[in-house]
Amino acid sequence: MAKKLKGNLIVGQSGGPTAVINNSLCGVIQEAQKHSDIENIYGMLHGIQGLLEENIIDLGRQKPEIIEGLRSTPSAALGSCRYKLKDEDCEKILDIFKKYNVRYFIYNGGNDSMDTAHKVGELAKSEGYELRCMGVPKTVDNDLAFTDHCPGYGSVSKFNAIATRDAGRDTEAIGIVDKVKIIETMGRNTGWITASTALAKDSEDSAPHLIYLPERVFDEEKFLADVESVYSRLGYALITVCEGLKDKDGKYLTASDRAIYADAFGHKQLGGVADYLCSIIADNLKIKARFDKPGTIQRMSSLCASKTDAEEAYMVGQAAVENAIEGASGYMVSLVRESNDPYKCTTGLVPLEKVANAEKPVPDEFINEAGNFVTGAYIEYAKPLIGELPEYVRLEKIAVKR
Amino acid sequence: MAKKLKGNLIVGQSGGPTAVINNSLCGVIQEAQKHSDIENIYGMLHGIQGLLEENIIDLGRQKPEIIEGLRSTPSAALGSCRYKLKDEDCEKILDIFKKYNVRYFIYNGGNDSMDTAHKVGELAKSEGYELRCMGVPKTVDNDLAFTDHCPGYGSVSKFNAIATRDAGRDTEAIGIVDKVKIIETMGRNTGWITASTALAKDSEDSAPHLIYLPERVFDEEKFLADVESVYSRLGYALITVCEGLKDKDGKYLTASDRAIYADAFGHKQLGGVADYLCSIIADNLKIKARFDKPGTIQRMSSLCASKTDAEEAYMVGQAAVENAIEGASGYMVSLVRESNDPYKCTTGLVPLEKVANAEKPVPDEFINEAGNFVTGAYIEYAKPLIGELPEYVRLEKIAVKR
Repeated sequence: MAKKLKGNLIVGQSGGPTAVINNSLCGVIQEAQKHSDIENIYGMLHGIQGLLEENIIDLGRQKPEIIEGLRSTPSAALGSCRYKLKDEDCEKILDIFKKYNVRYFIYNGGNDSMDTAHKVGELAKSEGYELRCMGVPKTVDNDLAFTDHCPGYGSVSKFNAIATRDAGRDTEAIGIVDKVKIIETMGRNTGWITASTALAKDSEDSAPHLIYLPERVFDEEKFLADVESVYSRLGYALITVCEGLKDKDGKYLTASDRAIYADAFGHKQLGGVADYLCSIIADNLKIKARFDKPGTIQRMSSLCASKTDAEEAYMVGQAAVENAIEGASGYMVSLVRESNDPYKCTTGLVPLEKVANAEKPVPDEFINEAGNFVTGAYIEYAKPLIGELPEYVRLEKIAVKR
Repeated sequence: MAKKLKGNLIVGQSGGPTAVINNSLCGVIQEAQKHSDIENIYGMLHGIQGLLEENIIDLGRQKPEIIEGLRSTPSAALGSCRYKLKDEDCEKILDIFKKYNVRYFIYNGGNDSMDTAHKVGELAKSEGYELRCMGVPKTVDNDLAFTDHCPGYGSVSKFNAIATRDAGRDTEAIGIVDKVKIIETMGRNTGWITASTALAKDSEDSAPHLIYLPERVFDEEKFLADVESVYSRLGYALITVCEGLKDKDGKYLTASDRAIYADAFGHKQLGGVADYLCSIIADNLKIKARFDKPGTIQRMSSLCASKTDAEEAYMVGQAAVENAIEGASGYMVSLVRESNDPYKCTTGLVPLEKVANAEKPVPDEFINEAGNFVTGAYIEYAKPLIGELPEYVRLEKIAVKR
């Protein structure tokens, strides 16, 4: 039987917003409201950065319909931050917690946030201040270790899968003019988001045709040969690339010392990866290429929120409070896949310290040998996370009788 | 009573694909199937360009569920083209029409397509070959004259309105780090698409905060002052710009002779308009700015297809056939707004020749005096075209009681 701990709860959001992060917030609040040990529910505005200035609001006294409405509101409703914790900050945070009698601290974010929650928790322990610290995972990057996947990933994947399916149809239709389309996705260090574009593929010839992840060294010559091969077979090509692609020297493709180039029209350019790749395709293969870079639009598209993702985001928020009430502290709630068909996912607990210092790249078994696509094992992993995609028809090439 | 004309119908799609262009194709086919005068229904693959090579398929013998499925399939199912008609082509097209006994020619596209339909129709007339030529409007650019709006515009507008609303929430949440977000929309010559981002705005302070259309000369100093003003008031800013912005000399902002610049990190860059504007914000205001460029994703997003737009696209396809059966030729079907509240739209007819040579910019009454936003009159015009947008909640800033 866990020792009862009466006091206030504070929750904060950190890092890049997602389509479903507010579901976690809703889960935290609605669960907290069930427990009489939790006296007040506070929210930090703009995470730890706001907390340090005592920018705190009362979440327990919001209208219930606003709390419920968080489930369909994208982006971070409390405001987010990217704040590098300084040594003296932990002491200050703890002082503020004491001042507001905060006994439950729930922090929702990526591995930096887990590090923050861990450090504050350790300090409280050393000072004998009873505080239960729990991390709630959130990142479109899906790069947190010790969890099957991260809330936010299913929705960014759904966006990219649909955008790629649609862009594939677009390029197929107008490929007679714009022959190659490149979609640049987010993902500075890992290729999880880019990989999700593979979910668009619904037939052997449909888009995407090539996928490049930062887990593999980018080789320009091989890339051009790959593109030419698809193009000569289909007459068009749709390629997805990660913004974080690097060459054999570990340099980003867009690093300033290499990416000044002249495109087919003689314009000197340096842009993102896709921009650069369009130019080398034009220069070397003499094929017109265009790119789409949805940027942050991909991470918080409310229309593309995956139902599974939204439910799981709620579930991890709820589980953080439930576990804290039962006495847990110093853990991040993880997602544990119980079965894949039917898909079933529950929650587990991982020490914050372990999560804080790890980054999970796309594993080898999810990347094909040629390094230009994902494997069936990846599709099996990712498919349940995004739910149904829109299905399209294709006209049959029925010959005209004369 | 129209003179009966028995023979075959051919339909083609041209120009940039849209989310709803296949609704028009479906309308043409399903209407044509009702009339016994129309013996066979043919489709040209990749428009006139494919037709010239006799790339034709039979649409009358497709499975009904495939034809019906066109209503929810984005992009051009027949394949599209951008083909500049040569003088000798009209003769060749007419020969192919004669060979296949084509008596009804329905062409779905923008003003170049209307020009094609017009020229082929005139040639047929001069040769005494009975042919009924009808144009079906289609363009996300919304720049066709003599029609209230163009099928495709409602859906690209819905995409941009939702993306801007979501990006506004994103920037509001993380504006503590990424202070300015610029969204670059399509629109080489007119600002209709950019204007539609204004539909995202649901409160005085919500995004977008500034909108720049190519109908106004872009003034860098004024732009920077505008951005600074919003930023100092709200602490973040979301700006939408048209890819076709030009300076006082009529030069695109990204023309090669001006857009090589060094960004805040000393990288020399030339990219799109948004990329360039991010750099001048960083250089002059010392504020970090990021951009999203959804590119072609905005024009054929099936999830953002507007119901009204899809229905009207079907309606103009259907009306083209109905009118041709009744004897009309040489017209484009237009959309006529009968009333705005409730919104009611019917179809009309405009001579192809008139449409072919006109381009409709965003009119003065739709642009505010400062040239950095749209007017209420524009909102009233555009709102019915996109349908409902997702609504989000906002937490109240309820102070913590201690």
